[in-house]
Amino acid sequence: MIYDLIVLGGGPGGYLAAERAAHAGLKTLVLEKRALGGVCLNEGCIPSKTLLNSAKHYEHALHASVYGVSTSQVTLDQQAVIKRKDQVVRTLVSGIRAKLKAVGAQVVMEEAKITGKTADGFTLEAAGTVYTGKRLIIATGSSPVVPPIEGVRENLGDFVLTNREVLDLTQVPQKLTVIGGGVIGLEMAAYYATAGAKVTVIEMLPHIAGATDRQIGSLLQKDMEKKGISFLLEHKCLGVAPGKVWAENPQGQKLCVEADKVLLSIGRRANTENIGLETIGVSFDRRGITVDAMCRTNIENVYAVGDVNGKYMLAHTAYREAEVAVNHILGKTDTMRYYANPSVIYTQPEIASVGKTEEECREKGIDYEVRSLSMRYSGRFVAENEGADGLCKILVDKKRRTVLGVHIIGAYAGEIIWGAAEMLEMQLRVTDARQIIFPHPTVSEIIREVLWEFEN
Amino acid sequence: MIYDLIVLGGGPGGYLAAERAAHAGLKTLVLEKRALGGVCLNEGCIPSKTLLNSAKHYEHALHASVYGVSTSQVTLDQQAVIKRKDQVVRTLVSGIRAKLKAVGAQVVMEEAKITGKTADGFTLEAAGTVYTGKRLIIATGSSPVVPPIEGVRENLGDFVLTNREVLDLTQVPQKLTVIGGGVIGLEMAAYYATAGAKVTVIEMLPHIAGATDRQIGSLLQKDMEKKGISFLLEHKCLGVAPGKVWAENPQGQKLCVEADKVLLSIGRRANTENIGLETIGVSFDRRGITVDAMCRTNIENVYAVGDVNGKYMLAHTAYREAEVAVNHILGKTDTMRYYANPSVIYTQPEIASVGKTEEECREKGIDYEVRSLSMRYSGRFVAENEGADGLCKILVDKKRRTVLGVHIIGAYAGEIIWGAAEMLEMQLRVTDARQIIFPHPTVSEIIREVLWEFEN
Repeated sequence: MIYDLIVLGGGPGGYLAAERAAHAGLKTLVLEKRALGGVCLNEGCIPSKTLLNSAKHYEHALHASVYGVSTSQVTLDQQAVIKRKDQVVRTLVSGIRAKLKAVGAQVVMEEAKITGKTADGFTLEAAGTVYTGKRLIIATGSSPVVPPIEGVRENLGDFVLTNREVLDLTQVPQKLTVIGGGVIGLEMAAYYATAGAKVTVIEMLPHIAGATDRQIGSLLQKDMEKKGISFLLEHKCLGVAPGKVWAENPQGQKLCVEADKVLLSIGRRANTENIGLETIGVSFDRRGITVDAMCRTNIENVYAVGDVNGKYMLAHTAYREAEVAVNHILGKTDTMRYYANPSVIYTQPEIASVGKTEEECREKGIDYEVRSLSMRYSGRFVAENEGADGLCKILVDKKRRTVLGVHIIGAYAGEIIWGAAEMLEMQLRVTDARQIIFPHPTVSEIIREVLWEFEN
Repeated sequence: MIYDLIVLGGGPGGYLAAERAAHAGLKTLVLEKRALGGVCLNEGCIPSKTLLNSAKHYEHALHASVYGVSTSQVTLDQQAVIKRKDQVVRTLVSGIRAKLKAVGAQVVMEEAKITGKTADGFTLEAAGTVYTGKRLIIATGSSPVVPPIEGVRENLGDFVLTNREVLDLTQVPQKLTVIGGGVIGLEMAAYYATAGAKVTVIEMLPHIAGATDRQIGSLLQKDMEKKGISFLLEHKCLGVAPGKVWAENPQGQKLCVEADKVLLSIGRRANTENIGLETIGVSFDRRGITVDAMCRTNIENVYAVGDVNGKYMLAHTAYREAEVAVNHILGKTDTMRYYANPSVIYTQPEIASVGKTEEECREKGIDYEVRSLSMRYSGRFVAENEGADGLCKILVDKKRRTVLGVHIIGAYAGEIIWGAAEMLEMQLRVTDARQIIFPHPTVSEIIREVLWEFEN
């Protein structure tokens, strides 16, 4: 059988491409070597949110008295948390399997490689079987970067953990050192600190949270410090050995942090190796497979979506890229617009952003205006968050008056941000955006309040 | 001094009108007889959300074990809940006072009446002083309807409560009967049931939750029944006497419900009486002051915003109407579009809606298509809501393919819905709306999933 489409990889980009394509009537095959749902569902976004949800319930129960609720003997059972996480993952993986089955996409759970091209299409081999597809979507994802730091490779999986192992610890380490203060590092630091670990985050940059708005990142840092997490910014990790991590500050001073476990979260690398790209001549570089705004590679009928194209390593970006690629295959006009691509950090408080930051505008010479307000301007926020604060910041193009970016730290941020992504997608001007009716009382109203801080 | 604008009433519509007008440079006066923030802030939206937040923390602490968190001796302290509610209200009222001061709007805390019109403008009298304004915004709000039911009026404030008194009970009644299963009735039923009361809701209609999508209202009812709340639908309340409420079903069968307290929540009536409307000839009817899409009354330079115009008795509608009225005064083009007016019921689970329901489409002969999905299609929902479910339903205009309505029951619904209001405001088609990037994993993604259920 010759497939209309073969999808290599069953993560968010891969399974969604297969779902949309099969739903549109294409004979579609997905090849996945490990687990449907990929890293996101099995050892990333979903498991981490399950842990963070338990942490939230634990913190709420501990501090419920501020809301008139008394509790005693509040404890967190790490084994129960991990067990529930595994159940949630199983439920969602079978959901994906069911959806693919429902639309008639075929799934083969084997490691596959591209082997070449014939008159019928692209050939892939998996467990001795050859599959042929007229079109190919590559969605092989990414893997954690393992740097050439002394002691890291030797201790990997046991003392040094990646996103995979850190989500499976059945015992909370007494001391956890996190190398890399990006999204994954911060979320796991937050969880394990709440669960009782003494957590230290080592970050090479002078700030945490990567490309997040600096002011908002710094508010998160302060909040995490209040919860007992230590940050070593502008520190380079020199080496690890069981029980210890060495780091160096910009002045060359060395220090040693004790650690029962180390989480390595310095970034991820596109999975371009050992999948046979060279057999059909697909171009890629250090960042990933080179694609255009329709997710097309240099080879006709070959697309690359998700982490493997190295653009944005976010599951929802992969979803959208998958849809753009499938639409292109189906002859529908569609194109990626990365300017309306939101991101969320699921710490407590949550951070959510979409569009340009002040740092980015300054760097690119974009003339912008900015306004921000404390989250305490929201009545619901005050009603629900005793003693807490947060920030909502909006950037507007100085001449065109369109919304350039929305950045929020505070409760519900992740659930609110999609409407801001919609504003950017629609290129709304401040005066248009103000006419949206926000329900009262909600935390989302803070966006409306900030929009009214602009003169026009 | 002659004001550019006098605002009669300092609730959501009134204080926001004053804030926007003063910010734009108009000499503005607000006259408020009771408390800035009106019913919404002092005895409505905000206090009820404070109570419901405590209920949420209480329920979470009781059932935390499903998330690996053990607790014991979980109790809810009603006096502490009410005390905190009062603090939250005080904080927010002073916030409004500070905002009005910051923009230079004057506030007089006295009961005022319109007394007539002179060459200088409209005159109002409050505590013996006469104030003159070139323009007038009437924002006197609404009051609970007190029906001519036997025993109601005599027992009002003690045995029979309105939204005001029910938010001040320092003791949870053992048995609470709620007359009227609309938003206020359901929210208070939910709170007091969680707090330990045996709650019965009496509703004349065959369904709860007013104009809410029937299927979603019925899901809420089932959920509330599971929590021990009883519903007497299609029952007419015949009378009350301390300790008892009598009701009658459509077959004429009478029954008696025991009650320690009764909450009367059958609706609200526009406050058009005793404010001097007749002195300047402002038209009004039983529903409220008659206004056009710019919130203009029949008298030039007199506007009516919020509950008093009887259109939608929602705080955020009042906000938007206030802005439209002020924009009209400032000579800016603006108009109310009620089709993008969301609403939220803050029960657990939350309900949020915007736009048309199936019932409304059928009634008006609008040709629509509908799709819906269980909330369990959202990974975050599954991760955070053990054993729970919900629904997201979207209606689309069959020919134009624009989104007509979005209806959600489930966690975060109230914080998600504003993006749907934006969709309706922008009259997005399904194919446009699908291109919005929703962050993963969020509950908001359910909207995207449902959008993809449509053929095109």
